[in-house]
Amino acid sequence: MGKVEELLKNSREKIDELDGMILRLLADRAAVVAEVAEVKKAQNLPVYHPAREEDLITSRRRKAGELGLSPDMAEEIFRTILRNSRITQTGTMAGKALRPGAKVLVVGGAGSMGRLLVKWFSGAGYEVRVLERDDWDKAGKLCEDLDLAILSVPINITAKVAENLSPFLSKDCILADITSIKKEPVQAMLSSHSGPVLGLHPMFGPTTESLDKQIVVATEGRDPEKCEWVVAQLAAWGAVIVRSNPAEHDEMMDVVQALRHFASFAFGRFLCDRKVSLRRTLEFSSPIYRLELDMVGRLFAQDPALYAEIIFSTPQRRELLKNYVKSLSENETLLDNADVDGFLGEFRRVAEWFGPFSDQAIRESTYLIEKMIERF
Amino acid sequence: MGKVEELLKNSREKIDELDGMILRLLADRAAVVAEVAEVKKAQNLPVYHPAREEDLITSRRRKAGELGLSPDMAEEIFRTILRNSRITQTGTMAGKALRPGAKVLVVGGAGSMGRLLVKWFSGAGYEVRVLERDDWDKAGKLCEDLDLAILSVPINITAKVAENLSPFLSKDCILADITSIKKEPVQAMLSSHSGPVLGLHPMFGPTTESLDKQIVVATEGRDPEKCEWVVAQLAAWGAVIVRSNPAEHDEMMDVVQALRHFASFAFGRFLCDRKVSLRRTLEFSSPIYRLELDMVGRLFAQDPALYAEIIFSTPQRRELLKNYVKSLSENETLLDNADVDGFLGEFRRVAEWFGPFSDQAIRESTYLIEKMIERF
Repeated sequence: MGKVEELLKNSREKIDELDGMILRLLADRAAVVAEVAEVKKAQNLPVYHPAREEDLITSRRRKAGELGLSPDMAEEIFRTILRNSRITQTGTMAGKALRPGAKVLVVGGAGSMGRLLVKWFSGAGYEVRVLERDDWDKAGKLCEDLDLAILSVPINITAKVAENLSPFLSKDCILADITSIKKEPVQAMLSSHSGPVLGLHPMFGPTTESLDKQIVVATEGRDPEKCEWVVAQLAAWGAVIVRSNPAEHDEMMDVVQALRHFASFAFGRFLCDRKVSLRRTLEFSSPIYRLELDMVGRLFAQDPALYAEIIFSTPQRRELLKNYVKSLSENETLLDNADVDGFLGEFRRVAEWFGPFSDQAIRESTYLIEKMIERF
Repeated sequence: MGKVEELLKNSREKIDELDGMILRLLADRAAVVAEVAEVKKAQNLPVYHPAREEDLITSRRRKAGELGLSPDMAEEIFRTILRNSRITQTGTMAGKALRPGAKVLVVGGAGSMGRLLVKWFSGAGYEVRVLERDDWDKAGKLCEDLDLAILSVPINITAKVAENLSPFLSKDCILADITSIKKEPVQAMLSSHSGPVLGLHPMFGPTTESLDKQIVVATEGRDPEKCEWVVAQLAAWGAVIVRSNPAEHDEMMDVVQALRHFASFAFGRFLCDRKVSLRRTLEFSSPIYRLELDMVGRLFAQDPALYAEIIFSTPQRRELLKNYVKSLSENETLLDNADVDGFLGEFRRVAEWFGPFSDQAIRESTYLIEKMIERF
């Protein structure tokens, strides 16, 4: 072995040793965090403590700077550690029911979202029951002394299921759903059930392991104060609750879900029809293109029925998407005339409208692009 | 102070202490890495050693698992550390010129990309000269004994500048450009200069600090072996070199840049015209929507002229974009007829075409979504 190889080998051994020590300290740290989680659980204290986290990050950044390390690197490392602590703590908290012993029925509990609900509620010690397609003869028994019935069924049968279920519900039982539109389902639940009604929209898919920082929209139906423990329970599991009403929710989802998914669908369809070589474009790709292509590819890796449900759910939504197609056609004139000045004018107008959000967008996307470069 | 508060306070102090120890070990690690960088620099060894990095990650994951830590967390932490080491090492290597003393002229060296080139080449010890608009009377002097002339000027004047500059260049001098199209500029350089010609396309913007893992497309013009040191120098600074020819490059950029930017522009324009409440949609947003909106907002935070240049640069490109608009209109029928079955059919056809890329897309985007949730 030459002198250089030996030097490098020694350095690598030193690095391996240091990394081993770092990992052991992380394990010690995790043990302390587990103790904290137990205390918080016993005292019913919230897991996520944003102010403490920000203080911690600030202090680690300062300390890193003093040691000649990059504060940004230190921040990234400790954000990773904190997120993992939070998940551990959320895991511990999951054992805690805000309404110990309450009886929860998940209609469609064998579906992919239904299974998640069953897992979370059972894990916290609720008495969880499941009603599937073939269980209607047992509905009376399943609804006995029930505190909460959650409909986890496709949008197009939600109203019908609410109607079939309501005769079995006591007037104190909460009836909730988790479909991705809220106006019609909440209306249907209100018409068929006379007790508390709650419209939920968990903004994540069935592959989600932890509720940590996941968004759940909660829309009032009836008797919100009686429904509050359900919302609080989701928050205790780490979810971020957005409060809205069914009409606003649906309007927001027209853009946040339907428009965005439709645009990705149309983009993917075009790439397919042009027979673009995905593999070669990726070799040439800036992180931005790769990110965009990942978003499109992600859509096509998932259940088409889910997207059809979102895109075609209401006439208002289909109208919005048609307007989007029309708006896109308006750009054709710019292309036909190679109208650079027209483009610049439009660009500046839109940029002004985006306003301060653009700075945030640059900051967030730059961070993610760095992560992308780092990882892939 | 109550008992619980005291318990939490003690735990927090323990955590602070452990974190301090972790940071000190990271500083020790950085010192060893700096030694390695010096050795590599002296021996002219590459900074980035993918196989060693993957071995290291695998071993850290295993070790984490043994200690009861999450292997994914360990991987994230060590990827962050490795990326920072690489940047440090690249910084050290930047001092190393592959052609010490070679003379480099940056035409447009006061522009934003030009300044980057000047910084990198000067930093490595090259003799760097700058030619700006008003310097043509000094062109003869600036080109004396020149080894490399890089055109860093807008696309629409690149041909003209090449023509004006070539009389001053010796036939051994390399003429290169960095515009985002390659067919016309490379052709123009070949017509006006009889020596080595190299078409470069750095796939990043002027805010890029480090070349680490950034893509640079290199297209042959003439005498590629004579141009090779320029390409090798970019690689030594950490760039990933993609080799192509001007025609393929331009075709790829039609999709990777023009189509993608045009789609984002059109999407942003629609949101603006609909007066969508960005702030409120963000509160409701899944990480996917936020990511997409960041991509769109990012575009509108940047120089419109840059995007106009990309979008309108060639007739072939404008034709592609018009085809995209047309393709989008074809989806209108699906909406008009609320044709869910038609949608499902199209979706499945495109999904099949995306094939295995979808899995990669899910993996990559899931990772980024987690990063997004973690950070923002």
